[in-house]
Formats: sequence, C-alpha cells, structure tokens
Amino acid sequence: MTTKVTDAEAALKAAQEASVALNKSIAESPEKHRMLTGDRPTGALHIGHLFGSLQNRVRLQNQGVESFVVIADYQVLTDRSEAEGIDNNVRELVLDYLAAGLNVDGSKTYIFPHSHVPALNQLLLPFLTLVSMADLERNPTIKEEIQAAHLKTVNASMFVYPVHQAADILFCNATVVPVGKDQLPHLEISRKIARRFNKNYPGDRPTFRMPQPLLSESYMIRGLDGTQKMSKSRNNAIFLKNTEAETTKLLKRAKTDTDRNITYDPVNRPEVANLLDIYTLATGISQEEIARDIGDGGSGTLKVNLSKALNEYLAPMRERRVTLEQTPGIVEATLQEGVAKAQEVANETLLKVLKVMNMAYDIEAEKKSP
Amino acid sequence: MTTKVTDAEAALKAAQEASVALNKSIAESPEKHRMLTGDRPTGALHIGHLFGSLQNRVRLQNQGVESFVVIADYQVLTDRSEAEGIDNNVRELVLDYLAAGLNVDGSKTYIFPHSHVPALNQLLLPFLTLVSMADLERNPTIKEEIQAAHLKTVNASMFVYPVHQAADILFCNATVVPVGKDQLPHLEISRKIARRFNKNYPGDRPTFRMPQPLLSESYMIRGLDGTQKMSKSRNNAIFLKNTEAETTKLLKRAKTDTDRNITYDPVNRPEVANLLDIYTLATGISQEEIARDIGDGGSGTLKVNLSKALNEYLAPMRERRVTLEQTPGIVEATLQEGVAKAQEVANETLLKVLKVMNMAYDIEAEKKSP
Repeated sequence: MTTKVTDAEAALKAAQEASVALNKSIAESPEKHRMLTGDRPTGALHIGHLFGSLQNRVRLQNQGVESFVVIADYQVLTDRSEAEGIDNNVRELVLDYLAAGLNVDGSKTYIFPHSHVPALNQLLLPFLTLVSMADLERNPTIKEEIQAAHLKTVNASMFVYPVHQAADILFCNATVVPVGKDQLPHLEISRKIARRFNKNYPGDRPTFRMPQPLLSESYMIRGLDGTQKMSKSRNNAIFLKNTEAETTKLLKRAKTDTDRNITYDPVNRPEVANLLDIYTLATGISQEEIARDIGDGGSGTLKVNLSKALNEYLAPMRERRVTLEQTPGIVEATLQEGVAKAQEVANETLLKVLKVMNMAYDIEAEKKSP
Repeated sequence: MTTKVTDAEAALKAAQEASVALNKSIAESPEKHRMLTGDRPTGALHIGHLFGSLQNRVRLQNQGVESFVVIADYQVLTDRSEAEGIDNNVRELVLDYLAAGLNVDGSKTYIFPHSHVPALNQLLLPFLTLVSMADLERNPTIKEEIQAAHLKTVNASMFVYPVHQAADILFCNATVVPVGKDQLPHLEISRKIARRFNKNYPGDRPTFRMPQPLLSESYMIRGLDGTQKMSKSRNNAIFLKNTEAETTKLLKRAKTDTDRNITYDPVNRPEVANLLDIYTLATGISQEEIARDIGDGGSGTLKVNLSKALNEYLAPMRERRVTLEQTPGIVEATLQEGVAKAQEVANETLLKVLKVMNMAYDIEAEKKSP
C-alpha cells in the first residue's frame, strides 16, 4: 500500500515538473506541438468544465497549438448500456466548444467524434498486443470508475478503453495532453504503448512521438452544494447554456452558512469559499478582497454580486451560443471539417503502422490509382 | 466439471443437428447464404488444411454461396510478438487458396486481410460493450491456446480476439461459418454479440443475422508421425506447395509399424490408419479396400502407392500454383478485389450500426470512406 501511494505521488511530481517544461516549450515553439483533448458526450458543459479545462484548451489553441478535440462517443458506453440521446449530447457539446472559443477562425482546431474515424479505431488492434491483461486490470482509475458507476457487471470496453484512448492520442501523434491527476494512469498506458510499439517495430524512424501530460493549474470547482464536484448528475451545476435569470436563480439556492460576515476560509467554510473561488475566476479579483468588500453583507449579497459578475463574464459566450444554436448546419459543418482532417491524419498513421508491421502487402498504392 | 462437459457436449450436439439443417438450406437456396471463413497467415497450407477445411470451402463456393475469406493478420500477434514475415505468409496463403480453387472465375469469393478493412475493425468497439470480462476469461479455447503457446505473459489481444472474430463474421452478416468443434465457443460469442446488439439497438429491423456453425464432416488428418495433428511447427506436414519428389520423400519417412500385413485399425495401428485415411481422401476408395489390395506388401508398398495417388490428386492444384507464382501481381490483384468488396460491405454495416446507436450525426452522406 505504501509503495503504491509513493508510486502515484512520484508520478504526479514528475508530471508536474514535466508540465512546467512543456508549457515553456509550447510558449517558445507552439508549431512543434499538437494537442489532443476531449470529452465524453454525456451532456452539456458547465462552469466546472469551463474553468477546469475548456479555458486551458482555448489558451493553448490561441497560442498557436494545433488541436484535436475528440468527442469520445464510444466511451459513453463503458459504464452505461444506453446510447439514447448521444446524438443530442454531441450537438450540445459542439455548441459549448464553439461558444467557449474553440475552433475560432484562424485556429487549427479539429473537433471530431472518434466513431467517425475508422483508421483511428483500428489502432486498437495492434495496441492491444502491446499491453497485458494485468496492465489493464491494475489501473486504479478504472477501479474507481467501476465503483463510482455502481456497476453490477463490467463490460469489456471498460477495461479496454485506456487502450482506445491511446489510439485517440497516438493517431495524431499528440505531444500535449491536458489532464487531471486521475487521468495520469491512462496517459501512462498510452506512453507505454508508444514506447513498446517503437521498440517492437523500429522502421527507419520511430512511428510515435511520446505524448506528455500537461497538468492543469486551474481550480477544481465544486458544485452549488459546496462539497461535491460540480456535475449534471448531482444537480449542482451552472451550465454554459443557462440563461442569466437561471444562473441567478441557481446561485440563490446555493448552499452557504449562517455567518453573515463573509470570509475566505476553504477548510471551515467550504460552501462560501467555493462561491468566492468562482467569483475570482470570473473577475480576476482575489477571494480575500471580494470577501472584505462584502464584509457583513451576508451570503445574500455575495450571491447577488456573484450572479452579476458571473453573468457578465459568461455573457459573450452565451451570446455566441444562442447565435450558433440558430445557425443551421453549424454543428454538422464543424464535425465534418474535424472528421475529414482526423481521417486524413489517421489514415496516414495507419498506413505507417501497417508498413512497419509488414502488413502493407503492396495493395495501398494501387488502391488509390484510378 | 461434469456440468461443463455436459454443456460442451450439448453445444456440440446442437451444432451437429444445426449443421445438417444448414447444409440442406444451402443446397436449396445458396443465394440466401453468405459464408465467412479464413485463416491466420502463419505459413503455407498443408494437406491437413486441404482435407480439413479448404475443400469444404470450395464445395460451398461452387454451390453458389457468396464467400468472404478473411486473412486474420492481426490475430497472428495474439500468441507471438513478431510481425516478421507476415507479408510473405499472406502471399503464400493467397497462392494456396487460389491453387485449391477458391476465387475461381464466376465465383463470388472475396479474399481480404482484415487489417485493410478499418470499418470491420471498428465494430470491435461497440461489440466490446456487449460482453463481460467474465465472458472472455472463461473461454476454454483461449485457455488451451495460452497453454499450447507456452506464453509467459498474455497480451490483451489474446482475450479480445474472439470479439474481433465476431467483427470478422458479423461485418458481412455471414450465415454460414465452417468450424471445427474447438471453435464453437468462439462462434457462441459472435452469436451472443449479434443477439445482444439486436436487442439493445432494435432499429426498424435486426441489424445482424444469426451466424450458424457448419461443422465439417471431414477427416482430421494427423501428421506423418501418425499421432499428432499435422502442423508446420511439428515438422510432420506435406504442403500443397511441395513438389512430387518432396512429397514422395516425406511419405517415405512417415512413421508406420513393423507388421507387413496392412490393415485398417485406427485404434491399434494409428500411423498406418492415418496413411490409409489420406489415401482414401485422395482417391475415394475405402481404407479397407486399399488395405486388402496391398495385403502383405508392407508399409513400403503402401507409401509408394500413396505417393503416387496423392501426387496425382494434388497435381492440378500444384500446376495451378506454379503458374500463379509466376503471374506478376496476381496476389495483389486478388487482395485488392477482396479488400474493395469487404470495405464496401463493412462501410455499409458500420453506417447501419452507427445509425441504430444514435451516432450518425447527419455527417454520413458527405463522409468519405477510409
């Protein structure tokens, strides 16, 4: 047990150090990097996603990093058996991405559902030969996810999805993968697969670059209950697509405490502290300063002021989102562009992989000829 | 233990009965069926393959059944880590197929390596959500294969390949799958996946037909040692590509016994009986009659006569094979035709699967196939 904790801690420390170096390298030469990031399409995004990851992606995109954003639709089925509503969730996700500033004009950002990139998915086959069942079964994040989803029976895709994630990452030879610390074990499997593939199938030069974790420095926002992670299923979230009135109403119901004097004390007053954190993220003003300004105004004042600040902050995104919702074909066109690019890149990678594995059979060249 | 044996026996009996009905249905309406069959490209084919499966496939093809022959190149890596020589093995396999009479003019037979059909491979993703880890781990054939290959570590593709095999079978909606009894557990996984998929994702009509096992009635030929299965690795095989002189030489070294009086006694004289079996397969004359004719001539006479009969039987195939070997581009052209057809069929199936899983997103029409 002690060893495991130490391993995880060591991995976290290494990833933190690597992230500093990686951020520096990105700032200096963004054109040398490619980012892979994405989400499962399980519903619309909320401000937890915005502050926790979306903003960071937009920042990297705007620094000039070519970005592939995978909508991991197959991964939805790892812990549920219902595909009902996936199409609508994909639509909402794309609208949120675009509203948040991903894929703005001039950016090199490609948004695609991996279900539409067969050559990417095929990489699962060679990659499965490079990991052992033990590698998959001892993954701590998988164990936690199985527990969290209260699964009675675990389907095989739950164990295999980190290998599929390796395909998501390696198909485009990503160098930068923004992750939270719970995702480090998964990324380690991708790195292991890249390393083993390059070793087993050397070719003239290594097929895969080594993907690096970029640990986010963002706050982890809790939900309006102040204690749990913000999440649709916990009914404690403010969504990007909520209106200003809805946001105000949601914040009015947020849990606080009875002390009218507002102070920033995350340990003893987590609910108030969480609201102050959101305030800070929306305004750039420190939590302490906001608290001082309100003083004895009580949590009512805090909520009113926060509603105003947050709504102001989200206004441009929300305006964009409303416009986008009313633009026919915008989601389809975005996905189509992303899918076309992802297919092109995946087909190239797959061809390299087939060649180096002695599986090209000289039928590639003739396949394309008229 | 008793239950397991009974289950396996019950499954075998059911498959035998179903095979009789299936053969009848094929004879009556071959156009209603589609056959899926294939091999791992681990080396050239020998007469064990010819009598055990190839001839049966040719028979079904010639009855008018549309046939997909998958070269399971990814499956080579389930129990070895070397992809060295796969390309050459694929070449040898195709030459053997063509020489044996598969893909003759006018037939609807398509030979393709599954590594070249990304949409087929993608089916692995939804299929993995339909089986549990327990389903995969209790597969008795997998357990035997792990033992037989003396594997120290087992890679994940070993457990997953029956699901990949389901993709091989279901991508073309095969109704007929010729199998030996050791393959019945695998086919059962394919049937389970088809059943569960149709139930979970009903759509307007079932997406998959139920594939049926067609148990081969052919002899299981043993090698020239008379006791073990004929196999390249056991160095006891006669290959289709051997010359007449090589065949005669190999048979001269075949193990027999010291009793000069030739009789057909599989239990007490397995080596002699095996040679008589091969003789029968090559000539159609019964083992007893052949044995009577030789009488006290001893195994020397048996071997000389068998060499003559077998070489005569194999002559047309071998002639074809030599011609094919000298025809530039024949292997590539065969694979190209097969891959084109398999891709077309797989793309159609994948599109149906995406639609019924709510993953089509209205971008299909403009999507280019991989």
